[in-house]
Amino acid sequence: MKDRIRCPQLLDRIVTADEAASHIQDGMNVGCSGFTPAGYPKLVPLALAGRIKRTGEKTRINLFTGASVGNELDGALAEVGAIDKRMPYHSNKMLRDQINSGQVRFYDMHLSHVSSELRYGNFGPLDVAVIEAHAITEEGHIIPTTSVGISPTIAKAARTVIVELNTTHPDELEGIHDIYIPRDQPDRETFPIVKPSNRIGKPYIEAGPDRIHHIVMSDRPDSHSPFAPFTETEKRIAEQLIDFIATEIKSGRMPKGLPWQSGVGGVANAVLLGFLDSPFANMEFYSEVLQDAVLDLIDAGKVVFASGCSITLSDEGEKRFHQDIARYKRHLLLRPQEITNNPEVIRRLGIIAVNTALEADIYGHVNSTHAMGTHLMNGIGGSGDFERNAYVSMFVTPSTAKGGKISSIVPFVSHFDHSEHDVKVIITEQGLADLRGKCPREIAREIITKCAHPDYRDMLMDYFERACREVGGHEPHLIKEALSFHGRFIDHGDMRKR
Amino acid sequence: MKDRIRCPQLLDRIVTADEAASHIQDGMNVGCSGFTPAGYPKLVPLALAGRIKRTGEKTRINLFTGASVGNELDGALAEVGAIDKRMPYHSNKMLRDQINSGQVRFYDMHLSHVSSELRYGNFGPLDVAVIEAHAITEEGHIIPTTSVGISPTIAKAARTVIVELNTTHPDELEGIHDIYIPRDQPDRETFPIVKPSNRIGKPYIEAGPDRIHHIVMSDRPDSHSPFAPFTETEKRIAEQLIDFIATEIKSGRMPKGLPWQSGVGGVANAVLLGFLDSPFANMEFYSEVLQDAVLDLIDAGKVVFASGCSITLSDEGEKRFHQDIARYKRHLLLRPQEITNNPEVIRRLGIIAVNTALEADIYGHVNSTHAMGTHLMNGIGGSGDFERNAYVSMFVTPSTAKGGKISSIVPFVSHFDHSEHDVKVIITEQGLADLRGKCPREIAREIITKCAHPDYRDMLMDYFERACREVGGHEPHLIKEALSFHGRFIDHGDMRKR
Repeated sequence: MKDRIRCPQLLDRIVTADEAASHIQDGMNVGCSGFTPAGYPKLVPLALAGRIKRTGEKTRINLFTGASVGNELDGALAEVGAIDKRMPYHSNKMLRDQINSGQVRFYDMHLSHVSSELRYGNFGPLDVAVIEAHAITEEGHIIPTTSVGISPTIAKAARTVIVELNTTHPDELEGIHDIYIPRDQPDRETFPIVKPSNRIGKPYIEAGPDRIHHIVMSDRPDSHSPFAPFTETEKRIAEQLIDFIATEIKSGRMPKGLPWQSGVGGVANAVLLGFLDSPFANMEFYSEVLQDAVLDLIDAGKVVFASGCSITLSDEGEKRFHQDIARYKRHLLLRPQEITNNPEVIRRLGIIAVNTALEADIYGHVNSTHAMGTHLMNGIGGSGDFERNAYVSMFVTPSTAKGGKISSIVPFVSHFDHSEHDVKVIITEQGLADLRGKCPREIAREIITKCAHPDYRDMLMDYFERACREVGGHEPHLIKEALSFHGRFIDHGDMRKR
Repeated sequence: MKDRIRCPQLLDRIVTADEAASHIQDGMNVGCSGFTPAGYPKLVPLALAGRIKRTGEKTRINLFTGASVGNELDGALAEVGAIDKRMPYHSNKMLRDQINSGQVRFYDMHLSHVSSELRYGNFGPLDVAVIEAHAITEEGHIIPTTSVGISPTIAKAARTVIVELNTTHPDELEGIHDIYIPRDQPDRETFPIVKPSNRIGKPYIEAGPDRIHHIVMSDRPDSHSPFAPFTETEKRIAEQLIDFIATEIKSGRMPKGLPWQSGVGGVANAVLLGFLDSPFANMEFYSEVLQDAVLDLIDAGKVVFASGCSITLSDEGEKRFHQDIARYKRHLLLRPQEITNNPEVIRRLGIIAVNTALEADIYGHVNSTHAMGTHLMNGIGGSGDFERNAYVSMFVTPSTAKGGKISSIVPFVSHFDHSEHDVKVIITEQGLADLRGKCPREIAREIITKCAHPDYRDMLMDYFERACREVGGHEPHLIKEALSFHGRFIDHGDMRKR
């Protein structure tokens, strides 16, 4: 224990999870560590949920995290109805239902905005921070575990700081982090990152013994997401994407060696594993979430460096990581999300960005978040931060969903996350639409002929041509039919005409 | 003449406008200086238009500028049907009609993206650049006039460079510019601007005698836009905006002294002139277009520094500026648009951004560009660059248009430019909606009750409440009615129910 709590005066602040949870009360603003299920507190939220279930109290909190967290936090608290406000991202089914029923007030945000909005006070003062830590230094500084997220900001801002000291990672995890909190305006400085491997901060979150009020010991590991397998459809998308970038580099339009960002899920894994057989060498990542495939790519000598905000592994992936952590650590670095997702750094580095669309319209606007325009899936996450500022902004999606009943290419998106100005390439298993240097009417033909599923191609082209003929304009639309695909799905469960 | 062309070997490159225009031929990519009618070439495009009219030739070019330009360029070329592609922004009526009829292929772009997209080659190689200059240095470098825009990039990239040497400004204009072209990826560096007054470049565009092929002498001034007067409605918007910021500063949520950005037009002028009687002191601007009101604010000692991409004055404003240029110059600086509009600098400085919405929906999505979803007005301009990265992102609009027949607050915007994530405050003459820290359902009530015109308030609330009841979701919508306000206007010329 003294290996991990090296500041002697903090040893008597060790409490049980129940005692720590007793500091969380109804109406409080609570910030937690955690980014896309990694490095989030587990025992304290479980204790809180247990207390609420036991006492039947009506406690509801406002919960702020870096991004999504594991079931021990979002799931356990949602189950007892203990979340009032929630931001900025989630991936929990029960919480999703509560958000969509209006029971939970959810704030969907660009991940790069979260820490500064908290510091500006736009959500009010922070009562409690619960931060999962790997160790506490001699000086009382906090070494995070598998994610950084918003932890540096909440450690500074919260009235009460609870550290959940997690002993499941080898000592060598220490040193993987690069923690940097910008000064706020009007004194904000430049972030001198010109390579993904540049370090600009310290390996710990500055706290000090006065800023750590309670410590809970934990040996509960992150809930590991199993490695997402990918389908033939996703593989086909990945192949086109890799071909496209290889051709761009060959043609001289894109320099070699730009860093990559990629979202999570099946397509992302297909892309990452596709790199193993790709012509790319000495690859770098400047991304958010690092997953199993990054270890494969390091092992294969394909990836020389990966900067992220969290490392989220499968059970098997974590075993490999732990066994060879000293070697992997030379290629990895974890930063706060206001640095990983900062437009300054993203635009400077010239990132190749790949994110998933729920649907795209014929002019290239993208919906990443709301099914049928109303029901939230997970949130916008960092996709806006990366796509607006990337060297080339790519969105991927299978051309249909629900066994063909939903077309991912529609006349008009039912919710809007990314505008035509931020979308340069759209890829489905049907093909790749290159929107660069094309005007909206050219884009419509490109997207319909290259990306739409054959079942929907004629319907879309008919809509577009009638809109050109009957209405015209820079982006021709039949306003009264613009959302008719969605209307048909709502009425008949199928976007196809009957 | 030798005062203005100080590189002796260039004196024999002086040609007539007709000779210069002869280098512009059908199908060419032509880049011109100019940003929001200032500093654009006049004689060469007029000569080109004259030639086309005279010969009846079918010449059509692809025209790239910084932003909108004067009638001598967009107007003259549109009149002879000589524009095929056009980007990234315009404000010419005839060109607008040609864009909306599909005759001109227009590319609406974030202004911060234009120069780098050109350099990346996404529009193909640049054949000709026509750059209005104030002088050419001993070394053959180009000193621009009243705007910088994309001139540094097109001077470097074009096969043929034509300088239109404009003698209408006093010698003292020299030194107002700060020209900086970033290195492209993977070698992009930081932009070390931490104050609007920081200089990071040179007072001229690096060219050299080999890069200037033809020079045309000109004494034709910029077409001056008359100072836009403002209405009572716009004044009421401005008053609320100033009150809001003053209250934010007083409450400690916003530090004193953040720089301002503001769009152009009536509301902008009402805001700027409202500053004269405001509590703000030592104000700074980090904006795009600097207009007459900035001179007033400098004279009143309210503004200590204004950084922009162009200075666009009325006749009377230009007279004042010319008479006292040495003094004004101490408070002013003009930069390329990839620096004025760069997210890196905007987010670092923490700008207070004010831009105009055409319409906003009940969840805070904004349409800035397309009337009834289809017909382009001017373009997105720099609004996305500023609003996404501002300290506080504000949009202003009168609550109705067309004498009340159009509501600027609608259930669902008919075109998307700015998502809910980038809109924090909406102001109409009816009131101010503060969206910070509110979830979508709270935002809907805030916008409807604060911003909508009374004629539309009940209709909007009825839509929202039925959507909550009948559909639910994180952003409740009745998909089949979402665009019904627009449908009603298209059918009956009035969004109000009959």
